[in-house]
Amino acid sequence: MRYAAGIEYDGSAFKGWQFLGEGGPSVQAALEQALSSVADVPVSVMCAGRTDAGVHGQCQVVHFDTEAVRDPRAWTLGTTTRLPPEVAVRWCQPVSADFHARFSARARRYRYRILNRAVRPALGRQLLSWERRPLDAQAMHEAAQALLGENDFSAFRSAECQATHARRNLQAISVHRDGEVVELQVQANAFLHHMVRNLVGSLCLVGSGERPREWMAELLAGRDRNKAGPTAPSAGLVFVGPLYPALWQLPDEVTDPALQP
Amino acid sequence: MRYAAGIEYDGSAFKGWQFLGEGGPSVQAALEQALSSVADVPVSVMCAGRTDAGVHGQCQVVHFDTEAVRDPRAWTLGTTTRLPPEVAVRWCQPVSADFHARFSARARRYRYRILNRAVRPALGRQLLSWERRPLDAQAMHEAAQALLGENDFSAFRSAECQATHARRNLQAISVHRDGEVVELQVQANAFLHHMVRNLVGSLCLVGSGERPREWMAELLAGRDRNKAGPTAPSAGLVFVGPLYPALWQLPDEVTDPALQP
Repeated sequence: MRYAAGIEYDGSAFKGWQFLGEGGPSVQAALEQALSSVADVPVSVMCAGRTDAGVHGQCQVVHFDTEAVRDPRAWTLGTTTRLPPEVAVRWCQPVSADFHARFSARARRYRYRILNRAVRPALGRQLLSWERRPLDAQAMHEAAQALLGENDFSAFRSAECQATHARRNLQAISVHRDGEVVELQVQANAFLHHMVRNLVGSLCLVGSGERPREWMAELLAGRDRNKAGPTAPSAGLVFVGPLYPALWQLPDEVTDPALQP
Repeated sequence: MRYAAGIEYDGSAFKGWQFLGEGGPSVQAALEQALSSVADVPVSVMCAGRTDAGVHGQCQVVHFDTEAVRDPRAWTLGTTTRLPPEVAVRWCQPVSADFHARFSARARRYRYRILNRAVRPALGRQLLSWERRPLDAQAMHEAAQALLGENDFSAFRSAECQATHARRNLQAISVHRDGEVVELQVQANAFLHHMVRNLVGSLCLVGSGERPREWMAELLAGRDRNKAGPTAPSAGLVFVGPLYPALWQLPDEVTDPALQP
């Protein structure tokens, strides 16, 4: 039987979703250990999108196969009980055997929050990055629109990125201010390694006035990572989650009926 | 010279604003140590409202007297640099010698956030309490309106409360739902010990359907703490801050021009 599950995690304490080296825990390892304990047999999971060290997940989606028979409540609550406080299973349900958390996802959403004031964050600091220089969120929003559509995002790709090519379809991007917080929301079919954090790093240079709005379009066209801004810190980044077509009958938060299978 | 300062803190790691016993740090002690380091002489602070162990502050206000001459930037940034990551000084400015953080405040605001779902919080858990049973936020909101005005809040006062009487003027209270989160916002001239958490504990019994909406009015009239609901956990509670009349010329976030001096 194949199951899909929605996973929420605070990435602060982890070396990332998957971590192959030594020296720190991974979200995947914690989740597999807890699921295996509920199943009484080893369980491996496949996720919709691996996140880096320090990056959070609001609704990461995984699938796993097991012959262990448990009801959704046991998979959800029983597994959560066995997880550290930084991780929780939001939901778990049986899915068709041809569902694949990664390959069935048609889009991914991320958000990034920057506390924009002279003093570093204290309250809620686990989910914020910090920028001292005043940011013009409207300028950032306008500059970001140049990224829309199917483009080669080499300018915003980390040197370690293992994707075979850099073309991604950026479906929506917005930047708005809510008091002291500047928030970016972005949706694409998929993302390159460090892509959101590199976009944010460059957009902040536009927001602070160091670069003109047209610079984002120039960066994109130039495809040169060395010309773009710095990689923004991981703390502000949340993987909101993947989006699937309606046919998989997953919860609303990860379903977009407009998407084609 | 007298100064006023706005203080933000994550109360998770502290035994409260002020803690006279042994066994844990207090926000006040951390702040006084950092201010004294900037001033090069001992500095003591007086706050607008002491908060309990685990309760957070968005803009607590303090005043302090010192002959040390520093500009507002040094008080703000220099002090924050010397504070642990859980505490930051939002702003600091000279005030009239007759300003008093506690006695000049004409109102205080708190908010309380409950994650209302089957699974415990992982992301943002530092600022959330958790309630498994579905809560009817509208029922809680309506029930809470019975508390408005000047009333004797003995039913919602902890046994350790040292106030001379239990009459408080509750100026505004609201409960609303935003997705999985139920948020209460409340403003009064002042609060009794545990008053917000006791109000929340009782309102949750209304929200879950265990008690009718009229119960809040009955509890208030009965003035019997033993009849009210449990004290809600500290993690969900944030002291938004005090409010002062405009004459003190403090930042907007702690000023209400409608208040009389």
